[in-house]
Amino acid sequence: SRSLNLAVIPGDGIGQEVVAQGLRILSAVLPQDVKLETKEYDFGARRYHATGETLTDADLEQLKRHDAILLGAIGDPSVPSGVLERGFLLRLRFAFDHHVNLRPSKLLPGVETPLAGQPEIDFVVVREGTEGPYTGNGGTIRPGTPHAVATEVSLNTAFGIERVVRDAYARAQARPRKKLALVHKNNVLVHAGHLWTDIFTKVGEEFPEVTTEYMHVDAATIHLVTRPERFDVIVTDNLFGDIITDLAAAISGGIGVAASGNINPSGEFPSMFEPVHGSAPDIAGQGKADPSATVLSVALLLRHLGHESEAARIEEAVSADLAERVGEPARTTEEIGDALVARVTG
Amino acid sequence: SRSLNLAVIPGDGIGQEVVAQGLRILSAVLPQDVKLETKEYDFGARRYHATGETLTDADLEQLKRHDAILLGAIGDPSVPSGVLERGFLLRLRFAFDHHVNLRPSKLLPGVETPLAGQPEIDFVVVREGTEGPYTGNGGTIRPGTPHAVATEVSLNTAFGIERVVRDAYARAQARPRKKLALVHKNNVLVHAGHLWTDIFTKVGEEFPEVTTEYMHVDAATIHLVTRPERFDVIVTDNLFGDIITDLAAAISGGIGVAASGNINPSGEFPSMFEPVHGSAPDIAGQGKADPSATVLSVALLLRHLGHESEAARIEEAVSADLAERVGEPARTTEEIGDALVARVTG
Ligand SMILES: CC(C)[C@H](C(=O)O)[C@@H](O)C(=O)O
Ligand SMILES: CC(C)[C@H](C(=O)O)[C@@H](O)C(=O)O
Repeated sequence: SRSLNLAVIPGDGIGQEVVAQGLRILSAVLPQDVKLETKEYDFGARRYHATGETLTDADLEQLKRHDAILLGAIGDPSVPSGVLERGFLLRLRFAFDHHVNLRPSKLLPGVETPLAGQPEIDFVVVREGTEGPYTGNGGTIRPGTPHAVATEVSLNTAFGIERVVRDAYARAQARPRKKLALVHKNNVLVHAGHLWTDIFTKVGEEFPEVTTEYMHVDAATIHLVTRPERFDVIVTDNLFGDIITDLAAAISGGIGVAASGNINPSGEFPSMFEPVHGSAPDIAGQGKADPSATVLSVALLLRHLGHESEAARIEEAVSADLAERVGEPARTTEEIGDALVARVTG
Repeated sequence: SRSLNLAVIPGDGIGQEVVAQGLRILSAVLPQDVKLETKEYDFGARRYHATGETLTDADLEQLKRHDAILLGAIGDPSVPSGVLERGFLLRLRFAFDHHVNLRPSKLLPGVETPLAGQPEIDFVVVREGTEGPYTGNGGTIRPGTPHAVATEVSLNTAFGIERVVRDAYARAQARPRKKLALVHKNNVLVHAGHLWTDIFTKVGEEFPEVTTEYMHVDAATIHLVTRPERFDVIVTDNLFGDIITDLAAAISGGIGVAASGNINPSGEFPSMFEPVHGSAPDIAGQGKADPSATVLSVALLLRHLGHESEAARIEEAVSADLAERVGEPARTTEEIGDALVARVTG
């Protein structure tokens, strides 16, 4: 008999509420013969205030034993900006070598978009997750004086770029349109930009069926709002990926439905799945949060572990549920969970 | 009698056509007693291919003598990516210390936006122009091998941040809503981010009437497409400014109408005014380019030199012309110029 040994990190704010629904749908959809074991971990603001810890080596040892991780949200205004982001979220991505940060964008039928004319949006961003300007490499001299200088160093390696670029090509190859765009800023960030561009071109020789294009990140934001239907798969660096995936989420139904996977493709470490949204402390505990992004993250988790048909069932359920919501009064987090459970089991 | 001694750089592609119209409007609107002198300079792809030069020290000496610079566009596919951008555009911004890169976004009546519901958009981005990841500070080791490493260093100084932040506060103070947002990514780029945030807070004490907020760049892209009316003045770093001003242009009528000023507020060096769009080689020489962005850049130029009422007249003319175009067949570059000349003189 098979098993799924899941680490669950509800985290801060609405994290608790949305993860609870994500787990309900997961249990409901899993095949009978797959034994689900979950272990809940306490990370985020509470733990930080109580112990000063964000994520310890011992925590990583424990998390490592799981097949995958489901995260709600981490972050609270009571903690200084950067502490939990860098001490927990980024530390986990780096420690578990989550170099493929997968962020699909699909405008589902009936879902509102800020764009006019309800365009067809169905693309995936493959964001590099372990390099670029995210490595914490930088410093400040003469802080607090008029002569202060602060640096941030973007680190880019052939090793790190090649593996994520190859992953993106493989994803493009597996999709009907087989299109891949590299997004960077190689006319200004020439060193990193040329490394990305050269590797993108070289790896492309292994994927002759994939049509490629290069686009500057500034131009990409224009295309995302004027012609989003042109995109199929996008591969990009850590920071550009951060920026364009929030924009991508905004145009394809909002962060209420944006899912993501922090993936270690080799399986050496567990991959982590989380909604793109944050902890939304302003609405926490009120049953107002939309659990759809977490539920869709559960679908990505299942697909990653090889449960393709269950992943598809969840995605169809969310899609149908969103279509049904149009013009209806807002439902609670739990009511949406009820509806989704009914759909995936029905 | 007064004079305006202008350097004109038509540049590549559609640059020639749009600058020609910009100059017509400028001549038409200038007060009788202001003597306009223009000198045309040949920069861009032609000169690069002929001489290998992009912008020499001698060129800078000559340009320095003018009151201001009007640029069409620089860039051509025949020149490797980065050569003209860094060798001309960025070199000029750095040499003339254009630290205030001013990019207004206003959705004019009748102008198409990709956003649903025709939102009210009227904000200005003050983008830092001489620091950040744009300094060309970086390098590559072991290029072309699997062990290549490329770096890009973002340089941020208290001096450089404070002057642009103060400029932005003053602009916010002078506007009816008096709102200023700092856009950065201080939860990840903590060194640069904290320097920006600290200085933003400190300078704010001099402007008690200005309401401030901080926003991460990823969140800013969401707000720009979901609630653009919330923005009044935005101040941000060189790279984030590059990205969000293209998005801002896209939502407020497209790069056909987006103007910009590369400003040296002290007047030590001439400021440069240019449309945000590029050289668009695909439509060059066909009379299809919309000169409105260049004409609006002329308005920014006039305002910078103290000709406020002439600047306003140009902006009203462009606004009226755009409103009139709705549903009309496309006009040529020259026809649009004719209409604008008629309006500013009429
Ligand atoms: C919270 C922050 C560190 C994070 C990032 O910048 O990667 C977030 O914005 C995201 O996109 O997952
Ligand atoms: C052409 C390029 C160097 C430039 C920039 O990145 O600043 C352009 O995108 C701009 O916004 O003016």
